[in-house]
Amino acid sequence: MASTAVPSAAQETDLNTVRSRIEEVLTDFVDARMHALGQAPHGHQLAHCVREFVTQGGKRLRPVLGVLGWQAAQPKRDVPMPVLKTAAALELFHAFALIHDDVMDDSDMRRGRPSVHRTMALHHEAAGGPAPGRVGIGAAILAGDLALVWSDELLHTAGLQPAQLTAVLPLIDVMRTEIVCGQYLDLTATGRPDAGVEVALQVARYKTAKYTFERPLHVGAALAGAGEEVQAALSAYALPVGESFQLRDDLLGVFGDLRQTGKSVLEDLRDAKPTVLLAIARERATARQQALLDQLVGQRGLDEEGATRVRRVLVETGAVNAVEAMIAECHQQALQALDAAPITPHAHAALRHLAEGASWRST
Amino acid sequence: MASTAVPSAAQETDLNTVRSRIEEVLTDFVDARMHALGQAPHGHQLAHCVREFVTQGGKRLRPVLGVLGWQAAQPKRDVPMPVLKTAAALELFHAFALIHDDVMDDSDMRRGRPSVHRTMALHHEAAGGPAPGRVGIGAAILAGDLALVWSDELLHTAGLQPAQLTAVLPLIDVMRTEIVCGQYLDLTATGRPDAGVEVALQVARYKTAKYTFERPLHVGAALAGAGEEVQAALSAYALPVGESFQLRDDLLGVFGDLRQTGKSVLEDLRDAKPTVLLAIARERATARQQALLDQLVGQRGLDEEGATRVRRVLVETGAVNAVEAMIAECHQQALQALDAAPITPHAHAALRHLAEGASWRST
Repeated sequence: MASTAVPSAAQETDLNTVRSRIEEVLTDFVDARMHALGQAPHGHQLAHCVREFVTQGGKRLRPVLGVLGWQAAQPKRDVPMPVLKTAAALELFHAFALIHDDVMDDSDMRRGRPSVHRTMALHHEAAGGPAPGRVGIGAAILAGDLALVWSDELLHTAGLQPAQLTAVLPLIDVMRTEIVCGQYLDLTATGRPDAGVEVALQVARYKTAKYTFERPLHVGAALAGAGEEVQAALSAYALPVGESFQLRDDLLGVFGDLRQTGKSVLEDLRDAKPTVLLAIARERATARQQALLDQLVGQRGLDEEGATRVRRVLVETGAVNAVEAMIAECHQQALQALDAAPITPHAHAALRHLAEGASWRST
Repeated sequence: MASTAVPSAAQETDLNTVRSRIEEVLTDFVDARMHALGQAPHGHQLAHCVREFVTQGGKRLRPVLGVLGWQAAQPKRDVPMPVLKTAAALELFHAFALIHDDVMDDSDMRRGRPSVHRTMALHHEAAGGPAPGRVGIGAAILAGDLALVWSDELLHTAGLQPAQLTAVLPLIDVMRTEIVCGQYLDLTATGRPDAGVEVALQVARYKTAKYTFERPLHVGAALAGAGEEVQAALSAYALPVGESFQLRDDLLGVFGDLRQTGKSVLEDLRDAKPTVLLAIARERATARQQALLDQLVGQRGLDEEGATRVRRVLVETGAVNAVEAMIAECHQQALQALDAAPITPHAHAALRHLAEGASWRST
């Protein structure tokens, strides 16, 4: 089922249809939850915050992959509501992960807007409340918690058959433990110049390759009753694509455009995130370059001028080229895996299209 | 089924048996999860932290009430494993709530030990990591997340019948949304002298009466197939008991003994928690007393001497007596509700015993 004659524009249209159906499911679900909070008005503010976060932007990558996993394993194209709801639950779970991630990284921006803890701090301050910084963080922890709790509620009210639920729940469990532990690895490695390429790759694998690509595909395929062969083929595609996605993310996190990525291009450097890009640069740096990295990377006050000097080192050490080469290699691996995968032509074409986006995107 | 001839010591023995079985289920589950993390060693540290928190102390009130809810609605005494596991899942959920609560309140102590974010900050510092304070908070957010994720996993691997799961999941969903929104109300009301008795009572209702008492009883009763009449009777008991439990907590939070409660008796005052005790004192304070409360309550640097002055105002305004009277009234209401409840004699006796403890405890 290898070949694909479907042009990329058609793929994009198909994916956009999935995205807008996911959007609808999410909005309907969150609105119903808010309605149910009628007797608890204090909850409305928190719920509203989750609603805004979930409905305003995001690539919807995980639900799209969930749907594609389902389409990979059976020939029907029209996606039934229980599959859509399960896929949408992945997006609510992701909202949880991002909201908590921004608290942990003390990130000011997300998707081109103030992050949730910043927004909630401003609300609290406007209402005359004390200690807005502390309350903003607390409110964001709770908003993340609520998104996680709701993700679960959406999953188990999705209308899945018992056999589907039995197939999916262990995957969801593994996924959730993996991402939480991956975040922990990221957290403890952040700011450590000695983290190295191996740790950075491990973070990329847990936070992105498995969580963003492999598990959503597995969840969707499990809904369609896929066996081990299909699941293994999806892994063989997902892991290199996920790695290339994260490597591209590392480049965009330093060389990207805020207007396109919605994220500051200083934060990764200010936080000294354990990226493969930085780890390679450290491996290859001369003493002078090493001293410059030690001085600038991890400085909370790093400015655009300092970042420019770091970028020059990343280029001059060959780290940027090395990461580009890794992306190209991952991309090739993913395409080869895809060509060998026993999946439907429709899913094949869509996954090929997604792999292009993952490796060569600018947002 | 009203009367109870069973002496209190026998009740305590029964409850201790339940507690140690819950303990066993929790330890076995967490150990199995840690074993499954074999391939992800970085997760071990985080998992270990959750294990320590969950297995070292706590009243196990929610799982005990879960088991009593089940016993209330059917005559068997021997608790089947799926019921125990569901009850234990409530304790893991509670670990999540406490770990995040301590981050939000910036509490140093929990159960007589350093809170999770403090412990994790010390670990990170000992390992030579940078920014231990920030990493401690991030690690505690993740430890709480992991406890929540695991609570869910324990619930849906408990071996419940489909009908039991269908009855229980909506209750769990409501409970989780209620407590997260209750925490938010608490968070935003903390430090606001204008919060008032009404808000303080609402916090007590959401954070304690419903979450700690009513919902666990409902969950257990639902497992036994209880109908609306039993559930309503359990609510009529649980809400006043929960209120009295929280009112006692407010008193212990200011007048208690650290060695018994495991919590500082300065933190509630330093944080200006929205307690009924403080709200009543403010309502009844003279101008001089009001000025003293304004000056001292909410001061991060409040010391034992300042706390003694606040305590005097709480006594002199009659707030302490008023709260004691409210506790006595709630207690009476709960006992009356219990006498009218269509539940088993065994559960009746145990719930009466628990109500005594909730109202008149010193820990």
